[in-house]
Amino acid sequence: MNGAQALMKTLADAGIEVCFSNPGTSEMHFVAALDSEPRMRAVLALFEGVATGAADGYARMTGKPAATLLHLGCGLGNGLANLHNARKGKVPVVNIVGDHATHHVPFDAQLQSDIETVARNVSPGFVRTSKTTATLCGDAVAAIQAARGLPGQVATLILPADVSWGEGGTPCPPPPAPAPPPADDASVAAIASAIRSGGKTALLLGGNALREPALLAAARIAAQCGVKLFCEVFPTRLERGAGLPAVERIAYLAELATLQLTGIEHLVLVDAKPPVSFFAYPGKASELVPDGCRVHVLATPAQDAGASLDRLAAALGATQATPALQPVARPTRPRGRLSAAKVCKAVGHLLPERAIVIDEAITSGLLLGTMTAGAPRHDLLTLTGGAIGQGLPNAVGAAIACPDRPVIALVGDGSAMYTLQALWTMARERLDVTTIIFNNASYSVLNVELERVGADAAPGPKARSQLDLHDPVLDFCRLAQGMGVHAARADTAESFCKALEYALAHPGPHLIEAVVPESLGGAKRRVLPWLLRSLPNLPLPVARALKRKIAP
Amino acid sequence: MNGAQALMKTLADAGIEVCFSNPGTSEMHFVAALDSEPRMRAVLALFEGVATGAADGYARMTGKPAATLLHLGCGLGNGLANLHNARKGKVPVVNIVGDHATHHVPFDAQLQSDIETVARNVSPGFVRTSKTTATLCGDAVAAIQAARGLPGQVATLILPADVSWGEGGTPCPPPPAPAPPPADDASVAAIASAIRSGGKTALLLGGNALREPALLAAARIAAQCGVKLFCEVFPTRLERGAGLPAVERIAYLAELATLQLTGIEHLVLVDAKPPVSFFAYPGKASELVPDGCRVHVLATPAQDAGASLDRLAAALGATQATPALQPVARPTRPRGRLSAAKVCKAVGHLLPERAIVIDEAITSGLLLGTMTAGAPRHDLLTLTGGAIGQGLPNAVGAAIACPDRPVIALVGDGSAMYTLQALWTMARERLDVTTIIFNNASYSVLNVELERVGADAAPGPKARSQLDLHDPVLDFCRLAQGMGVHAARADTAESFCKALEYALAHPGPHLIEAVVPESLGGAKRRVLPWLLRSLPNLPLPVARALKRKIAP
Repeated sequence: MNGAQALMKTLADAGIEVCFSNPGTSEMHFVAALDSEPRMRAVLALFEGVATGAADGYARMTGKPAATLLHLGCGLGNGLANLHNARKGKVPVVNIVGDHATHHVPFDAQLQSDIETVARNVSPGFVRTSKTTATLCGDAVAAIQAARGLPGQVATLILPADVSWGEGGTPCPPPPAPAPPPADDASVAAIASAIRSGGKTALLLGGNALREPALLAAARIAAQCGVKLFCEVFPTRLERGAGLPAVERIAYLAELATLQLTGIEHLVLVDAKPPVSFFAYPGKASELVPDGCRVHVLATPAQDAGASLDRLAAALGATQATPALQPVARPTRPRGRLSAAKVCKAVGHLLPERAIVIDEAITSGLLLGTMTAGAPRHDLLTLTGGAIGQGLPNAVGAAIACPDRPVIALVGDGSAMYTLQALWTMARERLDVTTIIFNNASYSVLNVELERVGADAAPGPKARSQLDLHDPVLDFCRLAQGMGVHAARADTAESFCKALEYALAHPGPHLIEAVVPESLGGAKRRVLPWLLRSLPNLPLPVARALKRKIAP
Repeated sequence: MNGAQALMKTLADAGIEVCFSNPGTSEMHFVAALDSEPRMRAVLALFEGVATGAADGYARMTGKPAATLLHLGCGLGNGLANLHNARKGKVPVVNIVGDHATHHVPFDAQLQSDIETVARNVSPGFVRTSKTTATLCGDAVAAIQAARGLPGQVATLILPADVSWGEGGTPCPPPPAPAPPPADDASVAAIASAIRSGGKTALLLGGNALREPALLAAARIAAQCGVKLFCEVFPTRLERGAGLPAVERIAYLAELATLQLTGIEHLVLVDAKPPVSFFAYPGKASELVPDGCRVHVLATPAQDAGASLDRLAAALGATQATPALQPVARPTRPRGRLSAAKVCKAVGHLLPERAIVIDEAITSGLLLGTMTAGAPRHDLLTLTGGAIGQGLPNAVGAAIACPDRPVIALVGDGSAMYTLQALWTMARERLDVTTIIFNNASYSVLNVELERVGADAAPGPKARSQLDLHDPVLDFCRLAQGMGVHAARADTAESFCKALEYALAHPGPHLIEAVVPESLGGAKRRVLPWLLRSLPNLPLPVARALKRKIAP
């Protein structure tokens, strides 16, 4: 048995049954070994960023890692952005990077480069180059253990070609399942005491605290003690919709997040970090926790969030409390000229049961949360690391993880162009994904950011051209058809609803190009930065009313 | 004057007049400063790999660096593969990577990551994070000096947002022009003596030794002394065609390269490395220099290759020798069903004057060199670092560098899908590029490599599926049209010639999808690995005859 065959068996024995790949010559023995292991499914991507983003989406939905297969340092570079998103989302990935044979390295051939230095960016906790065929499977088990520990991480195993082709590979048994501890008694008691003290308190839920059991425990605490429930700004996987507890997501815009947190005296973190501004802005604070607010940690990302919330609920006598659950509510069917808001409304109107919703719509998705709040129960996956190009690959992985569930990916035009090759894999694997592209021909968020950072009162033509995608306008229908994906274009709410109904009623993949005006177009875009600057200085009720106007 | 404005002036003063960009919020002050510097042209890419590959192509054709503008560690990751190609090609690039404001870094916001560790992969010689606005321009000058020294390199300057937006920026004067030394007297004398000794000698030319003056000096030496002229396997920029000295490129396949080098007793390196196998194969040597062959270094990449060859020519009394020049010769117009060979033949038949030819056709381009050898003088740019996805971005950069010259990019289907977004920039900038895609629906080279590495005598269905792009077949015409590029499909030699004539006669960009059978299809692909294994054991004349059959 060669190294690659032993590795394949070791992976499968540990429950790793999908490999998202884009191989080259140095990975050919791994490729040949695929057929030696019936449990392993190989999914080809036309670009490594698709493979890594798919591994991220798959793990978000299954809770266990997939493998990637990447070609040397350059392949890892191509896949880095979506591994970054996985890292920030605490998502387990077993990242396998092929390398030259060990004896070939000193010759500095064309593809030779320092792979480990790249890997450290996304795998600070586990980078290992396997040195011999005999030790390969032990290295793989260590990588699997690192990846699926709590918090989940991207573990990078570098696999030299001769270690892969060498004989004498010996499969290793899987590592023990992680057993994260819950919050200790002292922390639970201290936080219970803070909550009982009566100061205005909020739980900030992130990571694994956004799954049903944890949400229910949090909602019982809220019902019993009147605490507020926040959700981190970019959740890895949020279970939501009718019948589940509703949580308020912290806003992307720091100005709005500040408003949300105003008056909070105790902020309890549950698998979440204290909220900070996404970017820095001249003269503005990065920290968003209000002055005087005390921050408590109930569960770190290395602890069991659900069990910790159960313990807190018990300490507060909330175990039998009745949690408030989101009632069923859908927006009406939109009509007239299409806009980003109407797309979100249509999605809320039509969202099927048990959907997986992937939101990389950036500015165009502002209303998505509101419009789908009372829709049937669904999972929401978001842009955890801020590196665009996550949505389409995540959809590939989620659809492979959950073949019986519809996947709906909402993606901005700028983001979609980063990893559009994912459409080909959707077609090849016949995935039930409906992709909605918001085509507003703009890096719309950057038009806001250009003003928010105070870069220039009146940006010049060269600056403006860097944010504009009008010349030429992208035709996403042709792009999808070029990769074998059925596509339709909509510029009215009626045609959009019809296209979405068709897509949901027929096996995918489908793409709907929603032609919309810039989501923050015209006057609103010019007014928004001023408004955001003014908000914190306004009386709170006025500011809150305005906030609802901006991002209800 | 803020940091970004001072940086912009410093870049322009140093002759850096193009910035290939894909910015985000942390780069907004740099974007705003574009309009403060009339000499700076900003070219937007929809993906960072396009921006970095364009900077590579631009520098290959102008001999001076462009700037990139990338968004944090993830943007750098996306651009890494083409920076790798630039590094391996010794191409100067001033790589500017935006970062969070220095005071924002400790908060570990979503996009925070260790940028420097990624940058070290492609910029081992120069990575610097600028710490203050006051020192920014000095850092930039150091980066420019590092980039455009000999050998050229990718210098990475990390630009925190507050260093960019801070007031007190002071432009710095440009660094001195590099003045690389030629070979010293002792080396020249020793090599002249080796050549005079009568042993079979070859010059292996690489890097800057592949430009006209150096080629002429080498050809005079060849005419006077009977030495052979080789060219490195993947030249950064090779001037060739009718009227220029012809050089024999070292083959990609180690088996063929071994044959080319058989019998050489003295190998003289001129801005080139000793030839090594591209990949390692079980039981095969990585080094290709024959046993007993002495290797001499006339010029390292840090020396002036042309001046060194002039000195060697003088030492050999060859200064007045008449160099052999490639005569004018074009293949006839191809006819019948299209094949990769006929595409190459058509390009040779129709190649216009002063074209820039970019070859990332992988297996489909096997005959390109032969078919264009006697075509009008042109430049050839190749895949220096082996990281696919270079061809289309290189074409963008070359066309911006040389707006009065036609650019023809020949790209395999698998490679094209890595950085297809380059087509949009071609359309936006109205670049005179004709892209030829070889659509054989396969990672054809990997079918060969799978057998060459001896991975499996009979690859299984999962292994084969990893190399196959048939399901679904890509439609490159739709993909091009989706990005605003005129496109035509050809499956006969006649329709291909017509499409190419049209493209060359009308301002670009254009794309021609050449539907071809797998270049090494059927019986030939199965026979090739056996043949390659057998070649070194055959009598040399037989092997050479076979070699001409395989790759004439």
